[in-house]
Amino acid sequence: MKRKGILIILDGLGDRPIKEFGGKTPLEYANTPNMDELARIGILGQQDPIRPGQPAGSDTAHLSIFGHNPYETYRGRGYFEALGVGLDLDEDDLAFRVNFATIENGIIVDRRAGRISTEEAHELAKAIQENVKLPVEFVFKGATGHRAVLVLKGMAKGYRVGENDPHIEGKPPHTFSWKDEESRRVAEILEEFVRQSHKVLEKHSINEKRRKEGKPVANYLLIRGAGTYPNIPMKFTEQWKVKAGAVVAVALVKGVAKAIGFDVYTPEGATGEYNTDAIAKAKKVIELLKDYDFVFLHFKPIDAAGHDNNPRLKVEMIEKADRMIGYIVEHVNLDEVVIAITGDHSTPCEVKNHSGDPVPLLIAGGGVRTDHAQSFGEREAMRGGLGRIKGHDIVPIMMDLMNRSEKFGA
Amino acid sequence: MKRKGILIILDGLGDRPIKEFGGKTPLEYANTPNMDELARIGILGQQDPIRPGQPAGSDTAHLSIFGHNPYETYRGRGYFEALGVGLDLDEDDLAFRVNFATIENGIIVDRRAGRISTEEAHELAKAIQENVKLPVEFVFKGATGHRAVLVLKGMAKGYRVGENDPHIEGKPPHTFSWKDEESRRVAEILEEFVRQSHKVLEKHSINEKRRKEGKPVANYLLIRGAGTYPNIPMKFTEQWKVKAGAVVAVALVKGVAKAIGFDVYTPEGATGEYNTDAIAKAKKVIELLKDYDFVFLHFKPIDAAGHDNNPRLKVEMIEKADRMIGYIVEHVNLDEVVIAITGDHSTPCEVKNHSGDPVPLLIAGGGVRTDHAQSFGEREAMRGGLGRIKGHDIVPIMMDLMNRSEKFGA
Repeated sequence: MKRKGILIILDGLGDRPIKEFGGKTPLEYANTPNMDELARIGILGQQDPIRPGQPAGSDTAHLSIFGHNPYETYRGRGYFEALGVGLDLDEDDLAFRVNFATIENGIIVDRRAGRISTEEAHELAKAIQENVKLPVEFVFKGATGHRAVLVLKGMAKGYRVGENDPHIEGKPPHTFSWKDEESRRVAEILEEFVRQSHKVLEKHSINEKRRKEGKPVANYLLIRGAGTYPNIPMKFTEQWKVKAGAVVAVALVKGVAKAIGFDVYTPEGATGEYNTDAIAKAKKVIELLKDYDFVFLHFKPIDAAGHDNNPRLKVEMIEKADRMIGYIVEHVNLDEVVIAITGDHSTPCEVKNHSGDPVPLLIAGGGVRTDHAQSFGEREAMRGGLGRIKGHDIVPIMMDLMNRSEKFGA
Repeated sequence: MKRKGILIILDGLGDRPIKEFGGKTPLEYANTPNMDELARIGILGQQDPIRPGQPAGSDTAHLSIFGHNPYETYRGRGYFEALGVGLDLDEDDLAFRVNFATIENGIIVDRRAGRISTEEAHELAKAIQENVKLPVEFVFKGATGHRAVLVLKGMAKGYRVGENDPHIEGKPPHTFSWKDEESRRVAEILEEFVRQSHKVLEKHSINEKRRKEGKPVANYLLIRGAGTYPNIPMKFTEQWKVKAGAVVAVALVKGVAKAIGFDVYTPEGATGEYNTDAIAKAKKVIELLKDYDFVFLHFKPIDAAGHDNNPRLKVEMIEKADRMIGYIVEHVNLDEVVIAITGDHSTPCEVKNHSGDPVPLLIAGGGVRTDHAQSFGEREAMRGGLGRIKGHDIVPIMMDLMNRSEKFGA
């Protein structure tokens, strides 16, 4: 019997011991009856998205989990972000990820402009697109939250340009570095783009309103992650001979999923932010299972809580994800599906960023052997029957349990 | 928060079940309260220095643990030995490790000349340097214990020469083999060197004294491990952007540490032998932690007890190491450091040499997840949360927990 597969990536899931939780991690501390039940009937393990100890980006981690060696395929984040916001890109385009930020007296005081809303970012981006004049064609578009993308048409050869993001607050923005004549030209264009955008943003009515409300204003652009066309030799759908759909809200992961070959859906209410409608995403998964063999569900806000060093919020978001998973489990026949739950990487609160800690992994459903684990958490995963595997092992294991793998040899 | 790292290599740590210990290994049988406490708060695992079942040398194992593929970098042991005793080597030098041995009627009866002291070896080496005449320039210098190094200047091209060490006692020394004209020339020089040295040693006053005392005389040289300049593409300090210091007594490991980029220190009393002053080494580690980000501590005599098939002495040396570790733990803040303890390889007593058994590994300190293990030993390591990893995973895992890794991707 061929089964269907559901791969649930809880972005930034893994963590380190939290003192106020008595040394438990947020996943261990959270009340997650649905994942715990899957752990009891299924099998756990730990997975290293790239390799032990190597912190992975969300883009490289997803590439790896979907079977592509990121050291060979990865060409920078910007391209995925741009694909993810629905831009049609040419192979000679150069794309960047952009943050709306707050600058005061030449110092970046908030790298995310108080996490402005998606709507605000989209309106500000529109004003920039209309008013900034560059010597090359460009596309500037809001993504989710404070994020945006910039595409410089036909400038792919200048990909060795640097960034102006100081990555910590309290510092001035950097000057764009460059390594050759093409990237020098891109650096000059970017400086001009940032200068003109600053003027447009300073006087925009959204910022006037935010200023009056005492909120950080989105008056500066931090540009990084120059990216060009990734080297994906074979689409996921061809490689595994499945119809593959994805339920994703954030642009970066949408872009990766598109590049790999998924049909990507974002149900109404799915924002990638803390307020995201998790049940809407679960419903979309159930709907897609009618037509698709393999459904990838991405859930972002657990990662954001790790970046914000907010363990209690991380617990809350994990519990939200658990309810989402409960909805899915209620609406499938567990004999006929294989469900895998993991993160793309760990985002420990103490690190406020991605770490190289392994990520707990749970696989349950038809055909799955049962191990000794009794709940879903980092410590239980250490004694899980899957052992310690690589991110790129997950899909082959799922496809095998789905009875869709091809034998090598006779 | 960036943490500091302490990597403690207990040379030859791992073992196999010992009957007189009721099937326990020396590490399991030994009384090690300090390592056991670290095991309870930290995480265990097993590491294969090179790959499962492959016995590693101390040199190749350390190369691997410090991130270099020994199959690509390793050019023989002699070079590290020579670096380790403080010789300045040129890239076209050919270096060898040498044992002082005892020969009687053409038969090697003790490959280590009764483990003569460092002082005796240095004096004998001096006599050889002064009295032996060769057609090429050479340097001969005592190392630790019965060990010495020989450097033939400018002879690197003859590296495919064999050895005269029969590796077991009760046999005559071998004739040096060779594979090409360059190594044939080196083989001839080595035969001449051994012949002249034998004459010098036979009549040396140190040996006359040892003969009177009924001790094995150091009257012969066993030469092996031809080595040339290793291929280390990037220093440890550059790769990880840390200031790195090492506390090591034995020449071979000093040489590897120097080649990799460590500043190497040998405190007074640290001999690499059973009598080594372990607390002096612990004090040096604490002192170095003021200035250095990463400190590597090497402890030799556990390995020697394995080579000597002396399980009780191995237990004693493990307990000595535990006291050394206790001193270190007492003098650091465990939230602010990451401590890893392992061996470079297993040296089971029954094998009297290195084996390919995996080596138990313990990591404790800030940020470390806790597993179910309750003491440090081979059997507990099997259920450790680190799983079974490779030697070259250790440093990336440590650097990640030290919050000094760089994310790949975004």
